[in-house]
Amino acid sequence: MAKIAMLGAGFIGDFYTFSLHGQRNRDRVVIIYSNDSEQCKSFAKKHGIPRWTTSMKEAVNDPEVDVVVIGLPNNLHLEAVKVTAAAKKAVLCTKPLGRNAAEAKKMLDLVEKAGVMNGYLEDLVYTPKTLKALKAVRAGAVGQVTWARSRETHPGPHSDWFWTKGISGGGVLLDMGCHCIEISRNYIGKDIRPVEVMCWADTLVKPIEAEDNALGWVKYENGAIGQFEVSWSFRGGMDLRDEVMGTEGTVWVNNFLRTGFEIFSAGGRKGYVAEKAESEKGWLFPVGDEVVELGYTDMFTDMFNAWEKKTEAGETFYDGYIVNEIMDACYRSSKSGKWEPVKLRVWRGRDKTPRISGIKNFDKDHILVKEETMPDGKVKIILKNKKTGKITQRIKK
Amino acid sequence: MAKIAMLGAGFIGDFYTFSLHGQRNRDRVVIIYSNDSEQCKSFAKKHGIPRWTTSMKEAVNDPEVDVVVIGLPNNLHLEAVKVTAAAKKAVLCTKPLGRNAAEAKKMLDLVEKAGVMNGYLEDLVYTPKTLKALKAVRAGAVGQVTWARSRETHPGPHSDWFWTKGISGGGVLLDMGCHCIEISRNYIGKDIRPVEVMCWADTLVKPIEAEDNALGWVKYENGAIGQFEVSWSFRGGMDLRDEVMGTEGTVWVNNFLRTGFEIFSAGGRKGYVAEKAESEKGWLFPVGDEVVELGYTDMFTDMFNAWEKKTEAGETFYDGYIVNEIMDACYRSSKSGKWEPVKLRVWRGRDKTPRISGIKNFDKDHILVKEETMPDGKVKIILKNKKTGKITQRIKK
Amino acid sequence: MAKIAMLGAGFIGDFYTFSLHGQRNRDRVVIIYSNDSEQCKSFAKKHGIPRWTTSMKEAVNDPEVDVVVIGLPNNLHLEAVKVTAAAKKAVLCTKPLGRNAAEAKKMLDLVEKAGVMNGYLEDLVYTPKTLKALKAVRAGAVGQVTWARSRETHPGPHSDWFWTKGISGGGVLLDMGCHCIEISRNYIGKDIRPVEVMCWADTLVKPIEAEDNALGWVKYENGAIGQFEVSWSFRGGMDLRDEVMGTEGTVWVNNFLRTGFEIFSAGGRKGYVAEKAESEKGWLFPVGDEVVELGYTDMFTDMFNAWEKKTEAGETFYDGYIVNEIMDACYRSSKSGKWEPVKLRVWRGRDKTPRISGIKNFDKDHILVKEETMPDGKVKIILKNKKTGKITQRIKK
Amino acid sequence: MAKIAMLGAGFIGDFYTFSLHGQRNRDRVVIIYSNDSEQCKSFAKKHGIPRWTTSMKEAVNDPEVDVVVIGLPNNLHLEAVKVTAAAKKAVLCTKPLGRNAAEAKKMLDLVEKAGVMNGYLEDLVYTPKTLKALKAVRAGAVGQVTWARSRETHPGPHSDWFWTKGISGGGVLLDMGCHCIEISRNYIGKDIRPVEVMCWADTLVKPIEAEDNALGWVKYENGAIGQFEVSWSFRGGMDLRDEVMGTEGTVWVNNFLRTGFEIFSAGGRKGYVAEKAESEKGWLFPVGDEVVELGYTDMFTDMFNAWEKKTEAGETFYDGYIVNEIMDACYRSSKSGKWEPVKLRVWRGRDKTPRISGIKNFDKDHILVKEETMPDGKVKIILKNKKTGKITQRIKK
Repeated sequence: MAKIAMLGAGFIGDFYTFSLHGQRNRDRVVIIYSNDSEQCKSFAKKHGIPRWTTSMKEAVNDPEVDVVVIGLPNNLHLEAVKVTAAAKKAVLCTKPLGRNAAEAKKMLDLVEKAGVMNGYLEDLVYTPKTLKALKAVRAGAVGQVTWARSRETHPGPHSDWFWTKGISGGGVLLDMGCHCIEISRNYIGKDIRPVEVMCWADTLVKPIEAEDNALGWVKYENGAIGQFEVSWSFRGGMDLRDEVMGTEGTVWVNNFLRTGFEIFSAGGRKGYVAEKAESEKGWLFPVGDEVVELGYTDMFTDMFNAWEKKTEAGETFYDGYIVNEIMDACYRSSKSGKWEPVKLRVWRGRDKTPRISGIKNFDKDHILVKEETMPDGKVKIILKNKKTGKITQRIKK
Repeated sequence: MAKIAMLGAGFIGDFYTFSLHGQRNRDRVVIIYSNDSEQCKSFAKKHGIPRWTTSMKEAVNDPEVDVVVIGLPNNLHLEAVKVTAAAKKAVLCTKPLGRNAAEAKKMLDLVEKAGVMNGYLEDLVYTPKTLKALKAVRAGAVGQVTWARSRETHPGPHSDWFWTKGISGGGVLLDMGCHCIEISRNYIGKDIRPVEVMCWADTLVKPIEAEDNALGWVKYENGAIGQFEVSWSFRGGMDLRDEVMGTEGTVWVNNFLRTGFEIFSAGGRKGYVAEKAESEKGWLFPVGDEVVELGYTDMFTDMFNAWEKKTEAGETFYDGYIVNEIMDACYRSSKSGKWEPVKLRVWRGRDKTPRISGIKNFDKDHILVKEETMPDGKVKIILKNKKTGKITQRIKK
Repeated sequence: MAKIAMLGAGFIGDFYTFSLHGQRNRDRVVIIYSNDSEQCKSFAKKHGIPRWTTSMKEAVNDPEVDVVVIGLPNNLHLEAVKVTAAAKKAVLCTKPLGRNAAEAKKMLDLVEKAGVMNGYLEDLVYTPKTLKALKAVRAGAVGQVTWARSRETHPGPHSDWFWTKGISGGGVLLDMGCHCIEISRNYIGKDIRPVEVMCWADTLVKPIEAEDNALGWVKYENGAIGQFEVSWSFRGGMDLRDEVMGTEGTVWVNNFLRTGFEIFSAGGRKGYVAEKAESEKGWLFPVGDEVVELGYTDMFTDMFNAWEKKTEAGETFYDGYIVNEIMDACYRSSKSGKWEPVKLRVWRGRDKTPRISGIKNFDKDHILVKEETMPDGKVKIILKNKKTGKITQRIKK
Repeated sequence: MAKIAMLGAGFIGDFYTFSLHGQRNRDRVVIIYSNDSEQCKSFAKKHGIPRWTTSMKEAVNDPEVDVVVIGLPNNLHLEAVKVTAAAKKAVLCTKPLGRNAAEAKKMLDLVEKAGVMNGYLEDLVYTPKTLKALKAVRAGAVGQVTWARSRETHPGPHSDWFWTKGISGGGVLLDMGCHCIEISRNYIGKDIRPVEVMCWADTLVKPIEAEDNALGWVKYENGAIGQFEVSWSFRGGMDLRDEVMGTEGTVWVNNFLRTGFEIFSAGGRKGYVAEKAESEKGWLFPVGDEVVELGYTDMFTDMFNAWEKKTEAGETFYDGYIVNEIMDACYRSSKSGKWEPVKLRVWRGRDKTPRISGIKNFDKDHILVKEETMPDGKVKIILKNKKTGKITQRIKK
């Protein structure tokens, strides 16, 4: 059983605590910190948390506390990690880790120097579908992954600070691109080096300084592409979808807007249908249990199991740092208009990963290009001559 | 924290224990009972359960045990309840409660006389989607429910005893009809009296004595119909779907075979994709986390919370008994070929529920039959004259 | 090329003509009849039809006319068939054929005596998906069909006459049950005798004399069940879905509300999104081309090809008559509360169809009950001993 | 009624002719040309075409022929257009128009100089769903389009010549990118100038010279992005999906693999389920009527109606030329690794299109950033101060 200090009493702190105290869970938040005492007090009351404080240090150094969870705006992550590392306590930090790679690198160094357990709270890598899909992909169900698209779009974040670049550090690319990048990286292989990125980012719809829409490709050493699509101007709810192409198969994951749950309501109704739904009338698409479907439940299970067993969490500050480096390269690319290298100050994956390869020999003289059953039931094969390179077709006998 | 005796080391005991020990759960199975000592031992080892026994009494009376969970074949439920009631321990029993209403009634009497907390383990009422849908329906999102269809079909159960009527007490109607009947009853209203039933049951495909396919309608006092469809000869996986029609809306819940998770695999792969999937090649439709999606997690949360707080569980032996009475009437109807009354020896719901009514006055002389926007954008209304009963149409101005 | 007299200038006449004149079609409506001269004139203008008349006889006997299409309210079908048969012209009649079997039988006799080509305009048997599904089923893709569910529900018909029993002859069972019954009959086999029916019908929501909701089962001689579900009180659009279970497979057809086409619109917009959509805001689910998706295009192709080639249409007055007999039995059952026999005055199908049978021998002593791959990859088989009837399980080697 | 010369007796000629002769169509292919006399003869027989020839000139100059349809490999388009323009006959050419923009420009000049009706056979712009979606978008249903994704992926083309760069002119980018680019262009606005492109193309899986996977973004003058994704190494069938984001809404179109039609078959079956399906077992996803769903029917309707009425087709050689220019820029970008300008030799659209703009004033001092209903039912608004630029939030009263 873990005793937790929650830093931050906003939307994400609420979701985290709701998740941590959910089901028959044995972990408990014992102290809540926020710089707003009113919010802090009512948060403590709502969640049955015994203590609250407006001093971050007090929260972190509370003698009962084992694990510190950081659910603060991006500009406060580094400070919170400093305080926690100093207290030599385990620390779990929300996404993105830093506002940029330099910040993330400092945080990584702090926790590793302090030797404390650290977790990067990338919940969307832990949705139940993603966990099962990753297991299938790693077991070879789809062959070698050539492309992984991850998409997160909705009509914009809940709180004002997200929209203010000085606090958040960036727009939708930083806020949601971090999810998509880490999801694709998991599908393609976390030990394969991301080598370069191409990114488009623009402020198309919202009256803000930062980008409200971004698209990007992350190229990995083996040739695979991780594609992300993020937007704060999507209409219709929250769209969370991933698609994976492999040489032997495909994965399609829809985490939110089409999960086999549909309600039509002619009248409005009171009550919360789904995070980021735009209406309570017409066709609505809720999810069953939000904190489960969004990965919070399985994420904290992994984190606290790791803490208990003194192993490494599935997502660590190192992963958060890698994501920040990729995003830094994306921002550079969106300005330069060309592919930009990912400059990793630390790399713990494979030294060299060979190219994806799907060459299948047909016979000693030919490579198989394609085999296909035709409408008339015959099987047509397309072959490449190994010597001449000539491509021909024939009907299989 | 609850200490549990698990009775039964078969498929359902495994699922229950897996669920009870899942995530960061604080409850623990401390003793496992099965009459097969080998199975018992290996079950204990697999799940990290400290003690095992081939004596049901020993398991139930284990001094550490607070709650007894019955995961045995149907013909052993009554005996297990007797032992548990005698020991004055809380008891949770798998579905169906009895092989028939007489058995269920005895079990109900036993636990109520003993004054012990009792829960009916109807997991499908607790799927996250069903819980949220029920909340929406009870809040009025779809008006008055007129019809609720619940469907459970798959290619047949896992263990031999299900197929042997002497042990199971019946075929697919008893095995899976109990789920569907209780789901519909929840949507329509658990306090509305089920008055009569019409049921078709046949042995169409499987070489067994009991029915392998059944369809039924349960008519409630207010005119609403609960429709069930169950089959042991469905091909393609496990189909778990519910549909609800209300005067003001609709609910569609798909718990299993189409939940926004799709994998295509050209080659086979090793590993368990989904309970009751028929292949590991081609298009596959797993669910994220089976014990969550099938309702086990939320069911045990409700049951153990109720036990801790000394309140009543959402599904009790009384509910199990009502379901058994409805199924008894279904078996009678499938033989008589006519609607058969549901004869309730105990009824704790509303005395009298008025008919569903959707009458909407249009003006002092007319009732509104329908209002519809036509292709040209005009709104057509269809009205009934209150005095003459004549139905006419006009364009709304 | 066919020259057509269209009888009826209402909603269905409009759809028919739109379909007949659609694409690069070579058939043409040359005269339109309606008893309302204003409606008739504007219909002619809208569709570019050269002549119009308020005399049914004039329309039918127009010398240019080859084929008469009846798109009139139910109470005028018989009269129109009389006039057409007298003129010895080919006749295509909308659904249901008669208001009851007696009427339908008269119509059947009239066209057969006159020796004219006749077609029953059951469009939903001709949706492109249904045509392809029927082809697959007939080719054995799903084995023997054991159950076929057909569902048609929407918020009620467009015109006042539907709601008036004297004109329509019945409620939603007659109006839409005819579709569902014929769809199921096609899946199960048109040459297999429907033997008895069970039907529930009630007036739950609408202030009308006829039923606004009905459910039914049609039992065929081989044991298969055709299930229909119809409603005039469904909310959310028009729900047109069919489901088929066979001993070796499954078919799921969704013709309308979920066809891979989704629009979210925050503001309203002008224009017709979909027949029977309830709104122009929020999530909308149009179909591509309504007259194609609803089967009109393929239905008329079949009918006019048959006329040209002097063969029989896929759906004839005989089929319409069978459907009316089944519906008559349904009305009797909904009153008697028991299964009612289908009394066919004419039967042209198979004399005797044996029971569905899925018995599979395993070895000389055992029948195979089920084979299943378990989570650990082992294959479990469940067997029945041919002599003792005992059911046992074992792991396949 | 049009009399057609079909050039090409391969897969696409077959599909075209099947479509042209489908339903109750009034147009007819009267002569078929192919350089392979055997194929030509059997094609004529199969489709009931009166004449065949191995001379392209003979086919085009056949005195009965009104319209020439080019269904030849890419390297023969220009020659065929030359012959047809010389004969002053209407000409419809399959996609892509040229192997590059220079070729396409020559073809455009030829038909315009000859003054003959010309059509670019971009079928996927004509799928029934796309037609209706485009109508909705143009009517303002989704506001201003900011992004349109079009995806076409399958396991590779049917014929050997596609795989040979010398004949085809390119790989999957040329073969299928042309579809996606024109679809996005239709959603974003055909009169808005495409200004620059970013493209990634690689040969990841297939043993060929040309690219087998490509991704790209086309930036339009108003800031909108058209995104394409094409692959010859996708597994699971043919994936044809489009997604559109607008400032006020969303469109999701699935043309092929998930259209509300699902079959599970335990055994194999004979017969053609769907173009490019990979199996006849397990879960299959056919479409209803392929030539309708793929847009051929509506495409030819538009083309022949235009020919009859002497108007312009919806897609002309000019459009084909624009697409070729965009693809040329894509090939340049895939090599240079940076955004490349689209260099249009001809532009007939708007001179200057202003940036997308979604600014909404809240009151005289503030711009509305976002409005959202919170879980507790309160409406939170996020505002930007017009003068200070500061972003704040408040609860709406």
